[in-house]
Amino acid sequence: MKKFVNDPQQFVPEMLHGIALANPDTLRYVPEYNLIHRVDAPNDDKVTIIQGSGSGHEPAHVMTVGKGMLDGACPGDVFAAPPMDYVYETTKLLASKKGVLLLVNNYTGDRMAFDMAQEMSEADGVKVRTLFIDDDVSVKDSTYTVGRRGVAGNFFVMKAVGAAAEDGADLDELIRIGEKVNSVTRTMGIALTACTPPSKGSPLFELGDDEIEIGVGIHGEPGRRRGKMAPANELVDEMLDAIVPDLPFESGDRVALMVNGLGGTPISELYILFGIAADRLGAKGITIGRSYVGEYCTSLDMAGASITLVKLDDEIERLLEAPAEVAVRIF
Amino acid sequence: MKKFVNDPQQFVPEMLHGIALANPDTLRYVPEYNLIHRVDAPNDDKVTIIQGSGSGHEPAHVMTVGKGMLDGACPGDVFAAPPMDYVYETTKLLASKKGVLLLVNNYTGDRMAFDMAQEMSEADGVKVRTLFIDDDVSVKDSTYTVGRRGVAGNFFVMKAVGAAAEDGADLDELIRIGEKVNSVTRTMGIALTACTPPSKGSPLFELGDDEIEIGVGIHGEPGRRRGKMAPANELVDEMLDAIVPDLPFESGDRVALMVNGLGGTPISELYILFGIAADRLGAKGITIGRSYVGEYCTSLDMAGASITLVKLDDEIERLLEAPAEVAVRIF
Repeated sequence: MKKFVNDPQQFVPEMLHGIALANPDTLRYVPEYNLIHRVDAPNDDKVTIIQGSGSGHEPAHVMTVGKGMLDGACPGDVFAAPPMDYVYETTKLLASKKGVLLLVNNYTGDRMAFDMAQEMSEADGVKVRTLFIDDDVSVKDSTYTVGRRGVAGNFFVMKAVGAAAEDGADLDELIRIGEKVNSVTRTMGIALTACTPPSKGSPLFELGDDEIEIGVGIHGEPGRRRGKMAPANELVDEMLDAIVPDLPFESGDRVALMVNGLGGTPISELYILFGIAADRLGAKGITIGRSYVGEYCTSLDMAGASITLVKLDDEIERLLEAPAEVAVRIF
Repeated sequence: MKKFVNDPQQFVPEMLHGIALANPDTLRYVPEYNLIHRVDAPNDDKVTIIQGSGSGHEPAHVMTVGKGMLDGACPGDVFAAPPMDYVYETTKLLASKKGVLLLVNNYTGDRMAFDMAQEMSEADGVKVRTLFIDDDVSVKDSTYTVGRRGVAGNFFVMKAVGAAAEDGADLDELIRIGEKVNSVTRTMGIALTACTPPSKGSPLFELGDDEIEIGVGIHGEPGRRRGKMAPANELVDEMLDAIVPDLPFESGDRVALMVNGLGGTPISELYILFGIAADRLGAKGITIGRSYVGEYCTSLDMAGASITLVKLDDEIERLLEAPAEVAVRIF
């Protein structure tokens, strides 16, 4: 394994320490709960929004804390759900008078931790609701999941509820918006290589020199099929052929198109995929209203990419357009 | 080779097509010259700023075209300087009445192309100046270079002259600012893996399972030494031990600190490096005024990172803080 790491057991804390040092004016780090939170949270004028999930998916979610997005993120170790007490303590610490919204990608371990934390927080008198995200069309169940998985489309739910929360929306309204965005969001991904968790020190699964995993999960779990490497055009077609009929997305629709890198794929290749997908959607009469190319939800150093489509309406587009300020930036 | 690509010969055009489709309101693509330019260039109220260089370093430079940064970028093929006529035609097409500033990372091929293009444009009556960037402390000369190489620190020159140009600074003033920023910027990088150019289809050089290249160039050219993989702390120390004494950066200085990913390294690891570097600089009495963590200048899919320090003063900090709008974003 060649990674920039000291003790693999300290991979997550050292990363969080770096995030805090790079954003001293806006973010705080609470080591006890792997927590990164806004300096101005809790703010009683807005609902507090918290996401956990495992580490290894950065920028999700510790680098998407900030104005217009999350108030806090308390991840577990790499690819591990956060311990229940991280979520519980974070919820108590950041609770505002308007309440707390917990965002949870649909994985069994995450659901358990967040469900228990919600129950305990409610017993303490905190107003809490939970929203599950499950945008992955690849498989119904997986190693980590009952039901569909939550993957990169999670970004759009975070962005929409984050913007609405800044505008003062209450908890019921955020649940309505989040469920609506989740219901019109669909994703599918392809892995070109496996990823290497720092503590394991070797690839999480085996993939031959000319093999790819189609419909891969963000923890490297199997997808729809193991296939042969193919030209980018064919891979985009296979992803869109799974995504488009699922909602379905139809001629006349206006969409957000995201090409998300899984960690080891350079942005040049992501733009190649974006160009192909945009052309294909244009030929189907689908208009691209908003474009997203980059890393949103990764799997450590996995080479690969996912495509997400979101069906836009005026409300969703306005929320996606709203300003946000988070750690992930080049300026 | 497993990459998202169709015909490797079309790697650059297909990427540029994707960039244009993702930014229809702000960017235009001119296929004849691999040119991405702002829709509003030329603008006679500002000096036009153009950069070329080879492809494979994205986001540099085709994804850093936009308000407050470049007016256009006309890259060559992967790791190849742009043909002279790309630079010449781009210069003529985008020339404003206030003139044209050509930014060139110091590589022999790039210098030749830009020097000739400047001469020919001047013969046509265009006011043109050229600024060379050479921030890499690793080696004096390299496979591609006489003198020091221009690497990720190039970003700070672009950002500073880009901001000043928006404010209406003339060509002489931009040269002064660009030379000043370049003179206080120092970079060094380490490769953990080689990169694979799409047309070659195999790694550009050999690096053993436990080997790293210290001081690597952004085209994979050799650095100071081939070493054994080591903990992140030691690698940061080796980079800072080369960078800090070079200017030198001293106790009491205020700096911008950039940790730049080389393409295949996840952002989690970049933040680990940032945290270590920030702690080390703090211990030396050096204050971090601005923080940059992400991909700025890459080498295709190479795993690795570079560290850049810029000595700040009020003028430079103001220019770095100024707003800019380019294609690279997650929002």
